[in-house]
Amino acid sequence: MTSDQRVTAAFIIIGNEILSGRTQDANLSFLAGRLGEIGIQVVEARVIPDVEQTIIDTVQRLSAQVDYVFTSGGIGPTHDDITADAVAKAFGTETFEDPEAVALLEAHYAAGEFNAARRKMARVPRSSTLLANPVSTAPGFRIGNVHVLAGVPKIMQAMVDMLLPGLTGGAVVESRTITVLIGESLIAPEMAAVENAHPGIDVGSYPYFKPGASGTSIVLRGADVEELERALADVTARLEARDIEIWTGDHK
Amino acid sequence: MTSDQRVTAAFIIIGNEILSGRTQDANLSFLAGRLGEIGIQVVEARVIPDVEQTIIDTVQRLSAQVDYVFTSGGIGPTHDDITADAVAKAFGTETFEDPEAVALLEAHYAAGEFNAARRKMARVPRSSTLLANPVSTAPGFRIGNVHVLAGVPKIMQAMVDMLLPGLTGGAVVESRTITVLIGESLIAPEMAAVENAHPGIDVGSYPYFKPGASGTSIVLRGADVEELERALADVTARLEARDIEIWTGDHK
Repeated sequence: MTSDQRVTAAFIIIGNEILSGRTQDANLSFLAGRLGEIGIQVVEARVIPDVEQTIIDTVQRLSAQVDYVFTSGGIGPTHDDITADAVAKAFGTETFEDPEAVALLEAHYAAGEFNAARRKMARVPRSSTLLANPVSTAPGFRIGNVHVLAGVPKIMQAMVDMLLPGLTGGAVVESRTITVLIGESLIAPEMAAVENAHPGIDVGSYPYFKPGASGTSIVLRGADVEELERALADVTARLEARDIEIWTGDHK
Repeated sequence: MTSDQRVTAAFIIIGNEILSGRTQDANLSFLAGRLGEIGIQVVEARVIPDVEQTIIDTVQRLSAQVDYVFTSGGIGPTHDDITADAVAKAFGTETFEDPEAVALLEAHYAAGEFNAARRKMARVPRSSTLLANPVSTAPGFRIGNVHVLAGVPKIMQAMVDMLLPGLTGGAVVESRTITVLIGESLIAPEMAAVENAHPGIDVGSYPYFKPGASGTSIVLRGADVEELERALADVTARLEARDIEIWTGDHK
């Protein structure tokens, strides 16, 4: 389901291991790409520590600012997994052991292996809805507009793919990308002119540096595809008028 | 220079290309690692779009909350590079063409190549201090406690290494990591016991999944090295008592 409206999302990455530099987040680019395909734009992401009050404050603030909030991390079986309780408190409620989640986990583990730590993963906020985890079973949940997901990329990304059909997107922002083999400062006037001439089209320039092959990728983004194509033709003509070689596609 | 105090930092990643999913940030883990080595802890990171008011609000809020703020992105030569003006406004001032920056850039470019777009990179806020860029010359700047850096990882990271000696760190948080070849839920009681028995030591457990080699890395972190070593001995003894095989080091 889509509409013409702008639909926004925020992503809260919960985890000391990201803030300490131990682990590099790989979920933001995945989530932003998938949401973008159905017309939901990620307008902010925050990386915060495993600190209850910080989680509560961040969830409350962002859930009031955007249409959809997603969190990753902190819903596992150990003492440092505090996300479920913190998100419950952000909504003025508490967690309970959800019978449906218990049944899922009991069926998943071999007899005798559903221990107390694993049972903790069945605790979700009251009034929340379970979110399917096709990789390791332990569910996430949705409460209000907040979707609470695992942190491990393989699990998080599978959960996103499961829940996407249930979201309502807006206008899909499409992009067109070309690359030139010169620095961005040499084409700055052309890009500014294109941005000014095409309302609603965002013109980004991203220099890249590789041995023997530096250049600039020019990314045009907008929800109005006809305007987007006009902008692409415009920037192409302006660069060709200067005999600048143009490659199609994105180079990073 | 270091002290025993906790010294905190926040990182603001400015760029539509990160929020759209086009580009995956690689600077947070680098910055967090380098700052950690000198006793500065990154306590929050935010990814925000190239929107002036959002940059102003985020810089003002975070610069009041932490000891050091770092930004990446948006200081290049094109129309979408708005960070310098926005940060100036966050401090109630404006940008001007800094003669020292002009001189650096004039010396860097061949005769006739220091065009208007490149000249834009000499604009920094009044009352700011230039930050050296050993890769591509165009300087960053510091104003108040905010350090404004390039977004391209190679440039950003070289700028960080240049400015690090000028920062005042606090207590260095060290870490010790061991890995077990079983899931984290099977050792949850031991880890909770270790966290409770060793004040000031943060015990994190990070499951990893690889074909034929899943397991859990246990990361102990704390500024008190003696307590850290006691916690390491404690968790090791508890796992050995259960005949659990222990690997040294981190597995991801």
